[in-house]
Amino acid sequence: MLHNIAILTGGGDAPGLNAVIRAAVKTAKIQYGAHMLGIPDGYDGLVQHAEPWPLDVSEVAGLLYRGGTILGTSNRGDPFSYPVEKDGKIVKEDKSDDLIECLKELRIDALIVIGGDGSLAIANALFQKGINVVGVPKTIDNDLKATEVTFGFDTAITTATEALDKLHTTAESHHRAMVMEVMGRDAGWIALECGIAGGADVILIPEIPFSWDSIMKKIENRSKRGSKFSIIVVAEGAVPEGGEQVIQASADETHGLVRFGGIGHLVGEQIAKNLKMETRVTVLGHIQRGGKPSTFDRLLSTRFGVEAVHMVVRGEFGQMVALRGGKIIGVPLEEAVGQQKLVDPEGQMIKTAEAIGICVGR
Amino acid sequence: MLHNIAILTGGGDAPGLNAVIRAAVKTAKIQYGAHMLGIPDGYDGLVQHAEPWPLDVSEVAGLLYRGGTILGTSNRGDPFSYPVEKDGKIVKEDKSDDLIECLKELRIDALIVIGGDGSLAIANALFQKGINVVGVPKTIDNDLKATEVTFGFDTAITTATEALDKLHTTAESHHRAMVMEVMGRDAGWIALECGIAGGADVILIPEIPFSWDSIMKKIENRSKRGSKFSIIVVAEGAVPEGGEQVIQASADETHGLVRFGGIGHLVGEQIAKNLKMETRVTVLGHIQRGGKPSTFDRLLSTRFGVEAVHMVVRGEFGQMVALRGGKIIGVPLEEAVGQQKLVDPEGQMIKTAEAIGICVGR
Amino acid sequence: MLHNIAILTGGGDAPGLNAVIRAAVKTAKIQYGAHMLGIPDGYDGLVQHAEPWPLDVSEVAGLLYRGGTILGTSNRGDPFSYPVEKDGKIVKEDKSDDLIECLKELRIDALIVIGGDGSLAIANALFQKGINVVGVPKTIDNDLKATEVTFGFDTAITTATEALDKLHTTAESHHRAMVMEVMGRDAGWIALECGIAGGADVILIPEIPFSWDSIMKKIENRSKRGSKFSIIVVAEGAVPEGGEQVIQASADETHGLVRFGGIGHLVGEQIAKNLKMETRVTVLGHIQRGGKPSTFDRLLSTRFGVEAVHMVVRGEFGQMVALRGGKIIGVPLEEAVGQQKLVDPEGQMIKTAEAIGICVGR
Amino acid sequence: MLHNIAILTGGGDAPGLNAVIRAAVKTAKIQYGAHMLGIPDGYDGLVQHAEPWPLDVSEVAGLLYRGGTILGTSNRGDPFSYPVEKDGKIVKEDKSDDLIECLKELRIDALIVIGGDGSLAIANALFQKGINVVGVPKTIDNDLKATEVTFGFDTAITTATEALDKLHTTAESHHRAMVMEVMGRDAGWIALECGIAGGADVILIPEIPFSWDSIMKKIENRSKRGSKFSIIVVAEGAVPEGGEQVIQASADETHGLVRFGGIGHLVGEQIAKNLKMETRVTVLGHIQRGGKPSTFDRLLSTRFGVEAVHMVVRGEFGQMVALRGGKIIGVPLEEAVGQQKLVDPEGQMIKTAEAIGICVGR
Repeated sequence: MLHNIAILTGGGDAPGLNAVIRAAVKTAKIQYGAHMLGIPDGYDGLVQHAEPWPLDVSEVAGLLYRGGTILGTSNRGDPFSYPVEKDGKIVKEDKSDDLIECLKELRIDALIVIGGDGSLAIANALFQKGINVVGVPKTIDNDLKATEVTFGFDTAITTATEALDKLHTTAESHHRAMVMEVMGRDAGWIALECGIAGGADVILIPEIPFSWDSIMKKIENRSKRGSKFSIIVVAEGAVPEGGEQVIQASADETHGLVRFGGIGHLVGEQIAKNLKMETRVTVLGHIQRGGKPSTFDRLLSTRFGVEAVHMVVRGEFGQMVALRGGKIIGVPLEEAVGQQKLVDPEGQMIKTAEAIGICVGR
Repeated sequence: MLHNIAILTGGGDAPGLNAVIRAAVKTAKIQYGAHMLGIPDGYDGLVQHAEPWPLDVSEVAGLLYRGGTILGTSNRGDPFSYPVEKDGKIVKEDKSDDLIECLKELRIDALIVIGGDGSLAIANALFQKGINVVGVPKTIDNDLKATEVTFGFDTAITTATEALDKLHTTAESHHRAMVMEVMGRDAGWIALECGIAGGADVILIPEIPFSWDSIMKKIENRSKRGSKFSIIVVAEGAVPEGGEQVIQASADETHGLVRFGGIGHLVGEQIAKNLKMETRVTVLGHIQRGGKPSTFDRLLSTRFGVEAVHMVVRGEFGQMVALRGGKIIGVPLEEAVGQQKLVDPEGQMIKTAEAIGICVGR
Repeated sequence: MLHNIAILTGGGDAPGLNAVIRAAVKTAKIQYGAHMLGIPDGYDGLVQHAEPWPLDVSEVAGLLYRGGTILGTSNRGDPFSYPVEKDGKIVKEDKSDDLIECLKELRIDALIVIGGDGSLAIANALFQKGINVVGVPKTIDNDLKATEVTFGFDTAITTATEALDKLHTTAESHHRAMVMEVMGRDAGWIALECGIAGGADVILIPEIPFSWDSIMKKIENRSKRGSKFSIIVVAEGAVPEGGEQVIQASADETHGLVRFGGIGHLVGEQIAKNLKMETRVTVLGHIQRGGKPSTFDRLLSTRFGVEAVHMVVRGEFGQMVALRGGKIIGVPLEEAVGQQKLVDPEGQMIKTAEAIGICVGR
Repeated sequence: MLHNIAILTGGGDAPGLNAVIRAAVKTAKIQYGAHMLGIPDGYDGLVQHAEPWPLDVSEVAGLLYRGGTILGTSNRGDPFSYPVEKDGKIVKEDKSDDLIECLKELRIDALIVIGGDGSLAIANALFQKGINVVGVPKTIDNDLKATEVTFGFDTAITTATEALDKLHTTAESHHRAMVMEVMGRDAGWIALECGIAGGADVILIPEIPFSWDSIMKKIENRSKRGSKFSIIVVAEGAVPEGGEQVIQASADETHGLVRFGGIGHLVGEQIAKNLKMETRVTVLGHIQRGGKPSTFDRLLSTRFGVEAVHMVVRGEFGQMVALRGGKIIGVPLEEAVGQQKLVDPEGQMIKTAEAIGICVGR
């Protein structure tokens, strides 16, 4: 039996999106002779009945190492609460039936959704309404409970670790504090893992409100023992004890359109003021989301893409692919969504950091 | 209670060895105030009562990103069957008591052995004789059953995948077959994973004796469909159906001292002859074992080193650290050694390769 | 005749400093049997009669690829106007005689100074006072007229270009303006060359005061032609027409100890406000000064170090090494210092950028 | 006046070919409003009147960092002596008039040829016959006298140097000789420059026939001084004194279709035999020709492409672009072709290598 499978990508960027698409298209065509349709701009493309893109094997050549997504991702939002203009105002309407209508018009047998928690929750809601959905989890922050790891995360921490390596050499020569702000609003995985791998002295994450005292003491102790430089990694969502997140420094002035490093600068300023120490701040920003996927992420993306198609063919809908114990398995979307995996302040990874003398802000 | 812990590295090189040493030294000193002694040249250093190297935190600075091992590894062999010269001839003797004597003289409470299957088997034998041993598994080929993955492997496949990326661009412009030989005598993990991540068309591994016909057909089919180049990844231990391994091409002439790419050249020659196609051969060799460890390998090495010291302190001897389901746990050496993890010809990873159209030689 | 040569590094960091030291030490020892003394912390080490470091060939092993400088660089400043505490206040005194005294005590025949414009001007002043000085130019900004290029620059633009490559992929998927701030207070070489090599759409440099209108028009024109993303590279010293440099955003509050990206954020904010476009800002900071030197920089550093020693042996003092037309030659320090090489707004490199459609702010 | 410009690429691969094409297309369109036609498969495409490819700005998006050439290169050869089948035999015929006819049919005003010495000689011959030709030099070996450097070379030595860095770490831990064979049949630039930048102990190049004795002595001297490993870089065209090139090891058997590392293996074998030392051989092969162009090569390619179009517009035909003293200038093809730039055995670069103790085979 021939299948007609649609695929879309939702939410923020993550290296490996294209590799999932490539693997899914190849598996569908080569192993099952199925047709694949690429939906442009995520759920938006379905709501707005955009022209789909028939994806043949030749179309996906070279996608393995290409960052970004050839399909684009949705910008406007949840089809169940979709922004539409009415009488000059923007109101939210349920457009899920339009979306389902579009799938029917295109004679789609199944839909593969590659996306983060938000996109997968929508996928689950569509499944509840009878759509044959299979999910592929994507979160560069690695904060999804249902899978040990998602693609894009290894590339992000690799980029951040390479940046730390570079800061190290120049810090050593000059007796300075070097602050590097990385992604992570709610979950500190990127900061924690790149910090351990890059030899940071202080790592500040959202899960552990930090004490200014602990940071200053750590840096001072290093100075006393002869290490005149210190490397501080700060997740963008890190907060001082009793303080608030300072992510969107200029939000009100610019209507939320621009995002600057907030907490990184604040930490740098405090170190400079308190310790009379030269301090430099680097804000990695979207560099972490871009670039060729790492070898690990290409493998994981490929395995996810292949398995998603197998699940479609086996009719295992309402599920998403996940990595557990080295195997790709299926996990019910219902269980998977809304389950954020935060850093456990008493877990093995934090304890590893503390065992080798890293200050995690407490 | 203060501890006196010795650490040694055995066997071939793997990126991350130094990172394990660094993490172990830091944990021992910072968390437990224990003393660490580095044993030079693996078991050899103990058999020959070589001067140990007191390892303080300052000694291990910068080791996180340094390839190789500052301790050196043993070249001469198993202390239980140690080569000694007698009457002008080399005979094997059990030197394990000398080794144990040396540990006593140095007042060592526990020994951490970082090594492959061979070194860990010796560690287990020493444990049977009463030595407090904790193992850290190391195999660049990733062929140890007891742990999901070992450090060094991610770096090796990253190096090999980057090489494949480079071959891709030049192959595309010139209508050629590009053969790349990678490590892997018994286990094909490196070839298989770098081949998938690097977009290879054919992957030949020791676990699946390959058919010349299948290879030629795959390349010809690609030509027919307009892809005039093909990328072939060959594990050094790959064998044609009914053939033999050709690893040591010049072994007899040079007394085993030199190793050249064997099977890679043979495969290249056959493709050139049979398909009248320009063919180029790359033999990656030891490049795969060298270089800075990848971010993943630095993390895993650090976690292994930290946990090994925790196990020493908790008195969990006769065990080795292992990664399972995202956690570092202890596994009895007895169960761990001698259990090679080969690629399952019907397993998920091979099926993934075949699903996207890669020929695995059959 | 045996020589006794001292070597020091001054000013900011640049990848390749260690490679110069290594090459100089090797050449001195191997080719001439001379002694080399490393002076710690630049001119400070001489003024304060710090213990010098005898540098043998074994000492410099591994320095070829190590960023930073093993000798450290001076922090306090010009020996001819050296800060000393007097009656509780900091006053400036001429300490050049102390420095010369120190060289005599150490029986130094010649001094090799690796440094930027400031350090080389001091070297020239010392030469005027009779010291046998040879200079090695160092400026990561590549703004020295006397040499076609200096080491560190290629590494810096390589780091910045790799960052642009990563921003490109994620910009493409998301319809955004990506602003990246790079080094360059007076000279825009880094911004210009990484911008061309990294495919930027807008490049803003100190030498060409930029028009907000030109930037906005460029980005809007791209949108109209279907390219919904734009990449903007901003040198930290770039200024709007009629505006001022905004390098030290928080200078007053923090006594000049902390430096944040200034103009990058300002540019991002304006784009967001004017074009109602999502904008992200990356501030590369000191990442550009760190890391392994590139192959080009290792070669240039090595050639500089070797030639500096040849010049010492040939008695060509008061000169510095320089690259011209592929050769390393000697250039009088007098001519070399104080001659800044800025980007010529009508020169070939700017014209190259404009020929391929890059907006340089006008 | 509108122009109609054709562009083709000839000969072997070099990173930066696509970047030249991109820059030329952009300059032609944006600055001059000219039309660009891409000729597929080099001169072959003209001889065989293949369909040309109209190249618009959108067509060349992303080409800056893409290795290889989107146009393909000629495989069959010189249009002035073109292989054609006659009565079942291959004979050579002058097809240059067919080629010129094709240019006329396409109404081409000028032809930009990107190629090596051979392709540029043909370009010159076409110029003599009245065609408006501008050349862009390409040789990964950097052996063209008329330009200080060509694109692709920096990428090649960067790849080779990174491989040497990796060999270094693993050599250090294991007391071995590591031999790495790189490209360079006639000119040893790649071996020489990557060898210096990568810290090789021995560098063998075609220009200096090597003495087995010198190599062995160098390695033995290192052993005596405690360095138990040695790194040997061998250009594929290196020859022992009184010996012959061994490039095409298996040429006769396979009709020249396959090329294996020859001299690298021979050198490895001799070291193993003579010094009883473990030896490993790496043959980098076409990895050196592939991959993303380096930052330097992207800049140079872009500058070459831009200037080539300027020269077309200014009517400066019969010339090629060249880098001299930091500027791109025009050089008559007549002077440029046939002038190979070999390593001068008494030149500055070789002397640099010897000054720091590298054995260059003598």
